[in-house]
Amino acid sequence: MVLEPWEQKAQTVRDYRDASLAKVDPPLGPIPNPLPLNSLDLPRQLLTAREYELTQNYDAIALLRMLRAKEVSSEELTRAFLRRAAIAQYAVNCVTELMWDEAIERAKYLDSLADPLGPLHGLPISIKEHQGMKGKKVNASYVSWIDHNSEDGLLNDTLYNAGCVFYVRTTGPQLMMHLECSSNIYGRTVNPHNRNLTCGGSSGGEGALVAMRGSVLGVGGDIGGSVRGPASNNGVYGFKPTCPRISTKGKKIGMAGSEAILSTYGPLCSSRETINLFMKVALDCEPWRIDPTLTPIPWSPVTLAKPLKIAIEWDDGVVKPHPPVIRALREVAEVCRKAGMEVIDWVPLDHSKAWDIISALYFVDGGENALAPVIEAGEPILPLTKFIIHEQPTVKSHTIAEFWKLCVERDAYREAYAKHWTATAASSTGEVDLILCPAVPGCAPPHETARYWGYTAQWNLLNYPGVVFPVTTVDQAVDLREESYQPRNDKDRYNYDLYPGPERYEGAPVSLQLVGRRFCDEKVMAGLEAIEKAMGRE
Amino acid sequence: MVLEPWEQKAQTVRDYRDASLAKVDPPLGPIPNPLPLNSLDLPRQLLTAREYELTQNYDAIALLRMLRAKEVSSEELTRAFLRRAAIAQYAVNCVTELMWDEAIERAKYLDSLADPLGPLHGLPISIKEHQGMKGKKVNASYVSWIDHNSEDGLLNDTLYNAGCVFYVRTTGPQLMMHLECSSNIYGRTVNPHNRNLTCGGSSGGEGALVAMRGSVLGVGGDIGGSVRGPASNNGVYGFKPTCPRISTKGKKIGMAGSEAILSTYGPLCSSRETINLFMKVALDCEPWRIDPTLTPIPWSPVTLAKPLKIAIEWDDGVVKPHPPVIRALREVAEVCRKAGMEVIDWVPLDHSKAWDIISALYFVDGGENALAPVIEAGEPILPLTKFIIHEQPTVKSHTIAEFWKLCVERDAYREAYAKHWTATAASSTGEVDLILCPAVPGCAPPHETARYWGYTAQWNLLNYPGVVFPVTTVDQAVDLREESYQPRNDKDRYNYDLYPGPERYEGAPVSLQLVGRRFCDEKVMAGLEAIEKAMGRE
Repeated sequence: MVLEPWEQKAQTVRDYRDASLAKVDPPLGPIPNPLPLNSLDLPRQLLTAREYELTQNYDAIALLRMLRAKEVSSEELTRAFLRRAAIAQYAVNCVTELMWDEAIERAKYLDSLADPLGPLHGLPISIKEHQGMKGKKVNASYVSWIDHNSEDGLLNDTLYNAGCVFYVRTTGPQLMMHLECSSNIYGRTVNPHNRNLTCGGSSGGEGALVAMRGSVLGVGGDIGGSVRGPASNNGVYGFKPTCPRISTKGKKIGMAGSEAILSTYGPLCSSRETINLFMKVALDCEPWRIDPTLTPIPWSPVTLAKPLKIAIEWDDGVVKPHPPVIRALREVAEVCRKAGMEVIDWVPLDHSKAWDIISALYFVDGGENALAPVIEAGEPILPLTKFIIHEQPTVKSHTIAEFWKLCVERDAYREAYAKHWTATAASSTGEVDLILCPAVPGCAPPHETARYWGYTAQWNLLNYPGVVFPVTTVDQAVDLREESYQPRNDKDRYNYDLYPGPERYEGAPVSLQLVGRRFCDEKVMAGLEAIEKAMGRE
Repeated sequence: MVLEPWEQKAQTVRDYRDASLAKVDPPLGPIPNPLPLNSLDLPRQLLTAREYELTQNYDAIALLRMLRAKEVSSEELTRAFLRRAAIAQYAVNCVTELMWDEAIERAKYLDSLADPLGPLHGLPISIKEHQGMKGKKVNASYVSWIDHNSEDGLLNDTLYNAGCVFYVRTTGPQLMMHLECSSNIYGRTVNPHNRNLTCGGSSGGEGALVAMRGSVLGVGGDIGGSVRGPASNNGVYGFKPTCPRISTKGKKIGMAGSEAILSTYGPLCSSRETINLFMKVALDCEPWRIDPTLTPIPWSPVTLAKPLKIAIEWDDGVVKPHPPVIRALREVAEVCRKAGMEVIDWVPLDHSKAWDIISALYFVDGGENALAPVIEAGEPILPLTKFIIHEQPTVKSHTIAEFWKLCVERDAYREAYAKHWTATAASSTGEVDLILCPAVPGCAPPHETARYWGYTAQWNLLNYPGVVFPVTTVDQAVDLREESYQPRNDKDRYNYDLYPGPERYEGAPVSLQLVGRRFCDEKVMAGLEAIEKAMGRE
């Protein structure tokens, strides 16, 4: 078979990846073939007991404590995560490069120091490929860009200066604009809990890797749900801060200079406190002195003065979430009430319009510039790319004046939503603190079906911070299809039809999202702490 | 003579203005004809001794103290400022509307209250016409818009809720994009110190009115120097905060939705502390909860921990300032040194490029949308409009992709400048705190010659806060033309030729600008306090 030129190019990148994985030492034992539906037990089968313990049992906070106490060396820890990340790659295809030699060299260097370099001293951290890496190539899933050199990234520099070890880079989808994770270079990343389901995207590689515990802290990006979707689908923690707090300087994108909707980086990780640590490290260095796009607000944790007033968004009025998500909302609402919080219903304000605005603003040039490298390479335009560009009636090429008009619409909507939220203060119990809502309208959906962005993109349009946290898993006995439901519109019907019953979602995690007002990031995190404590967690 | 339709329309607006001025009671005595070169003594001739005292001798802070102590009623004060504003109008043509009845009614209401309404209780405040006013028309100097109704303005609401009295609205130029103040509706506003010179623009009406002490606190707008230029030309205080801190919600512009370069409102006033008061009032109400474009940073005055390190920008490398400005820089540098501050030279970083970027971004549609209402009305396109649109080689119609590219250039320049400033920290005495520089490359220039925006627009591009303060006046004996100077380029030659000698600038104030890093607004104000104290001021 003769490969197309773009296929040959893509193959070179996979060869590079495979060579990086071949460094694993000692090599992994045989990988099951065929792979199981659920990949989560593979690491136990393939790692040493010590490797398994180190990677399985601790979050970043605990590992950093152990590193400081010299209960583990950075080298030992890094080797364990390198091997576990390799397993994750064989299981779910989430890795673009394993940095074996460099990571071990870095870890040894850190181990050799008398004093910790910084708050992340010795901790292995994973990074989404499209965010770049000093001295590396960065293709952002474009075949055309496979020879492009990475720029320096301010956030990477910050993490590095804080003492972390970069050891693995992870997959993203074509254009970085799917809520799944499939590209012509790396193929499809699947969900570790159930390989028939998507890991989500665009930071799907990170989501899957963290779920596999091939990483305790990874960095993804979010402009419509790209951190929160994968976090939800994979049952891990994910945070999208208010923009612009975290620098995305150095990222590789097809529409540099587009700023009507801001993207941000955010952590995917195995515990809530890891998010707080990440944010603190990212902001303590005053990145706004280097990157003038950033708002100079330090990370300032808050203490809640009184019990939370939480509004539950059961349904955004456009697409009704699947039964497991509604159950999760009900369960969390119940424990919050029992813990003394006030729980009311959120009234969504025309979320359909929000999608019209943000989907238009994503590709205000009609998608031309984002697609140009795809077309240049001759690689196929993938179905979810067509979905987000060609199948959105709002996406078209705008003149400058039309573009301004859209920005005015965006601002009017944002203002109306702020008023809507402030209006809750008229109640005798005061203003709503946080909104508890779905992150996606179900569990991880089957491949190629993640076509509803509303539950995450809503908060990108409004620039509200949102954290996703795992709540439960699909219950085969309880999460039955609502047979009598009459869908309200095509999107709702599409989503409804995705849920013939719980059996399709075997093993799938169910997650929720907690959202705060613009720049209330610290309050969102304090609220999550209160909620998780109410749930009986630490 | 038959008037063109646009002229007839413009006449109706002037008739409206004149009718509003006819309310002045008691009427003013005869206005000198011809008017003197310098208008500043007219109020003394035309006001009662008490009116003159109230308007001449106190800043907003002192007046508020007197209002609180009931040494003066809001009504008495408002009447005095109404009459003085009317004199200013006859002298320099800075008023679009005198709000006689409404202002007195409001003042009476405030006087009737047992307790002050807020921190501005009873204080008359002037507002630039294009910023709108509840229940009024707003034309923004477009003939086409003379029947347009004003939207509510968030800042106006804030000031009003703090207890102020709105009593007069002031002129701006065509498009609000001249550093002078001339329109087909209101004609030309001239400089109170010397009517052959411009009052500056776009907030030229405010600058002239405050110089005439027809107002102690007015609100203007700034996207390229429109607060700071008039402040400098008229010898009053003017402040452009970092964007977006002050809401411009409600302003009337021809390019709504354009946000690559942000505009802001800012105060023009008769004392430094009035700026601090204005900022505190504007931000204490948390306007970011209403206007989601704003950064949620409260006004947080700072105390300087050590003597300032000030860098003097003697010359931006493009256009050399006129002798009075260089002298003012020298004099202030000297008193700062004597007060124990460190004074070094600022090295400008390619300010010519900054102008190329910002001038392109002002009118990224080639000016089409800003000019459309002018063309629609058939009113003449004024020379300084042609200058800023048609005579700038950078101004053209951009595609979305070209526009993005410009934004990338802007961000790269901002980043380079941040690095440039941070690099000063390598010195043994640490980082430069503030830059002292010209606000305009001379005193107020003759009409139609304000064609160099570099000394103000530079800081708009960088989004650095800047305050303008009066330093001295032109000295006929000292400020001689530098005969041997060889201009470096056409802009430099044009500016050089504007200064045949000090005689052209008789009576003109000489002002300077103090600039800080992005969001260091409070530090700029603390720095100005230190400098003014070094100058022997309060």
